[in-house]
Amino acid sequence: MSRHDPNDGRARLSRRQLLLGGAVAGVGAVAAAGADRILDPPAAVAAPEELNGTQTIAFHGSRQAGVDTPVQAHAAYFGLTLRPEVDRAALARLMRILTDDAARLTQGEPALADSEPELALVPARLTVTFGYGPEFVRRAGGPTPAWLAPLPAFTIDRLEPAWSGGDLLVHVAADDPITVAHASRMLLKDTRSFAELAWTQIGFRRAYGSEAHGVTMRNLFGQVDGTVNPTPETTDFDRVVWIDAPGSWLHNGTSLVIRRISLNLETWDRLDRSGREQSVGRTLANGAPLTGVNERDEPDFAATTPLGFPVIADFSHLRRARSDDPDERIFRRSYNYDLAGTGGAISDSGLIFGSYQRDVARQFTPIQRRLDELDLLNEWTTPIGSSVFALPPGCAPGGFIGEGILG
Amino acid sequence: MSRHDPNDGRARLSRRQLLLGGAVAGVGAVAAAGADRILDPPAAVAAPEELNGTQTIAFHGSRQAGVDTPVQAHAAYFGLTLRPEVDRAALARLMRILTDDAARLTQGEPALADSEPELALVPARLTVTFGYGPEFVRRAGGPTPAWLAPLPAFTIDRLEPAWSGGDLLVHVAADDPITVAHASRMLLKDTRSFAELAWTQIGFRRAYGSEAHGVTMRNLFGQVDGTVNPTPETTDFDRVVWIDAPGSWLHNGTSLVIRRISLNLETWDRLDRSGREQSVGRTLANGAPLTGVNERDEPDFAATTPLGFPVIADFSHLRRARSDDPDERIFRRSYNYDLAGTGGAISDSGLIFGSYQRDVARQFTPIQRRLDELDLLNEWTTPIGSSVFALPPGCAPGGFIGEGILG
Ligand code: HEM
Ligand code: HEM
Repeated sequence: MSRHDPNDGRARLSRRQLLLGGAVAGVGAVAAAGADRILDPPAAVAAPEELNGTQTIAFHGSRQAGVDTPVQAHAAYFGLTLRPEVDRAALARLMRILTDDAARLTQGEPALADSEPELALVPARLTVTFGYGPEFVRRAGGPTPAWLAPLPAFTIDRLEPAWSGGDLLVHVAADDPITVAHASRMLLKDTRSFAELAWTQIGFRRAYGSEAHGVTMRNLFGQVDGTVNPTPETTDFDRVVWIDAPGSWLHNGTSLVIRRISLNLETWDRLDRSGREQSVGRTLANGAPLTGVNERDEPDFAATTPLGFPVIADFSHLRRARSDDPDERIFRRSYNYDLAGTGGAISDSGLIFGSYQRDVARQFTPIQRRLDELDLLNEWTTPIGSSVFALPPGCAPGGFIGEGILG
Repeated sequence: MSRHDPNDGRARLSRRQLLLGGAVAGVGAVAAAGADRILDPPAAVAAPEELNGTQTIAFHGSRQAGVDTPVQAHAAYFGLTLRPEVDRAALARLMRILTDDAARLTQGEPALADSEPELALVPARLTVTFGYGPEFVRRAGGPTPAWLAPLPAFTIDRLEPAWSGGDLLVHVAADDPITVAHASRMLLKDTRSFAELAWTQIGFRRAYGSEAHGVTMRNLFGQVDGTVNPTPETTDFDRVVWIDAPGSWLHNGTSLVIRRISLNLETWDRLDRSGREQSVGRTLANGAPLTGVNERDEPDFAATTPLGFPVIADFSHLRRARSDDPDERIFRRSYNYDLAGTGGAISDSGLIFGSYQRDVARQFTPIQRRLDELDLLNEWTTPIGSSVFALPPGCAPGGFIGEGILG
């Protein structure tokens, strides 16, 4: 169905080039000069060690990169408001320009009118992902999926307009913060005559190479965050995330809910370790469910304490976030933020919570509604921003993101 | 003179099990071992690749770390204002607590009352460096070096109180942004009953491993920035940076000038490449002087164009920043910042310019004065913050930073 192999969005390892490449080659040469060719260095030693900065993620493909891409260390999200006069034809022009520059930048090449071309030469697994809000889709001529609308109001919400909504999302992520800053600037310059910047959210996770691959992130509460999540490149992931609607402009697309959630580290500080663990239902040490030993053990919600209380409390985030309905599942890909504190606070910290799913209304909203009703974690967290975007599919070289609705 | 070997503040290479270090040793061993042991897989293949996150920089030593430490990817600078009631004894208590937690955190151990101890386990070359403003030294009972005072006013300055001054500097740097966020929070909590947070500056450079070691940083103007700089662990560096005054509380200390300099990327965008190169006197491609080919070529200020103009203009930053007086030299260690833009701007970008020297008045101020008088770069840059700190020497285990003035 798709024009491209879904796997072509993975890291292109072939461009590797190396730290110590010369050194290793040199030693290899010495070794090879010895007894016959037995001394051929083992592949592992000869293999050039790649600089993180040279790694690229393919831009073109049936699906946009930056969703199932192994999560990068740094991310920026920009919410843009379209200027009143921007019509369907202008949107197509805008998306052609953005697509073209995103394709270049992600491959470590300068943007078309790059003002600092040297900053483009370190792609560091850069991805650029575009999303459309309701107004974009309306001006593009629809059809608008039923779920593409602001979320229903939740009692826990304290939404600030400064962090909410948006007609166009530009999401930039890479393992290098200078790469993110540069690519962001080039792309935002492209949007200038079409849109105004409504909000900017900049986030981070562990640096590339800080921890072994596959270690689950910890958020600024210190919690292991992201354990229960569909695994990219499985049919399970495909079912949760990628829209399968041949003929629709969203076929091979997905949706993204961004919730900016302030973490109140001040009040969290007053909670002891056991209270913290009960609020989620998992240990802080390794994220195991309170009824288990290892991070990925299945929680046993039936287990009770000697006094007869559930070990994993009914009001725990784990219990409340989990549904028996197999449709109510999402793919979480979140970043931390930590800005300068104001008014005597040490910092302004939280989570740029990102949830990807086929259908916001069927998958995300029921979970959020349950958490709104009851979730001990709400005591220390406040949603201050909320946006919903439709992420169109990817495109082939020569095409552009959104061509299915704008082309 | 010093209690410790000045070198003990360096990266502990012994703990390294480096990326390809093992690999190279392994192959070398095979080569040396001849035919009988050839088939043993070299240690390298089995050797665990060192994660960036596990690397530590020694905290204790005659000099504070974080000055000559190979520059990390992420940094935070906190300027604190002492509470009115904090006297000399309180300052000593504060510095003992801070020293103790800094010593732990930099070695990948939780702070004494760490609320998220798991976040402490990825040191990622964390350093914590303390500096004292004039008020701190006054309350500590002095003596105050002549240069420890706000800089003279410069005509280019548009200083905002929000980014200026400070009685106590806590400077945190590491290759991992979560490490910086966590260590910062733990240390700031220590200061709470002693001081108020006046300002926070958070900056970044290329990620660890993005580029080969020793590549000079580019700032957000795209310029190669940091070429002409003393090399740590040379006598030249020692002469420029480390105070040599046995008996003084600043022996083996230094000073730090932090200038927050806004880079106007909007107007810079309008300047063509040749104008940009002339403003500094160096090429954008590789930072070579306009009279040379390679980054480290000596500039030839006498060279003229066919029309008789100097190739490196008299108003260029390079010409103006360079002095014939060998005393007027500094060690620059700067970070980029890139915050959300306000009022329609795409971003709020600039440099957290850090200058280390023995004597601010003799080394830094004359340079800044010359740049204030004439420097083409001033067209696109604005100093919006300015602070001066005295950085006391390091300490031995059991001691504390500042014991020379507080002990
Ligand atoms: C308020 C900030 C939040 C924090 C600090 C947080 C933290 C966590 C933690 C620590 C876990 C357990 C480990 C894991 O599986 O990742 C978890 C699980 C989960 N969270 Fe959150 N979360 C937050 C908000 C949300 C929101 C807004 C949603 C969706 C509306 C959500 C949905 C989930 C889901 C679906 C799981 C997996 C539950 C399962 O085991 O099936 N979380 N979260
Ligand atoms: C306004 C922001 C600034 C920018 C963008 C900037 C950029 C640069 C660049 C690109 C170079 C040439 C390459 C190198 O040697 O690093 C340079 C050199 C230098 N800059 Fe700056 N700089 C700034 C501010 C300052 C300030 C405030 C000072 C000190 C007061 C300073 C002192 C120097 C010195 C001493 C050199 C080396 C000159 C030499 O070759 O001897 N710079 N700067």
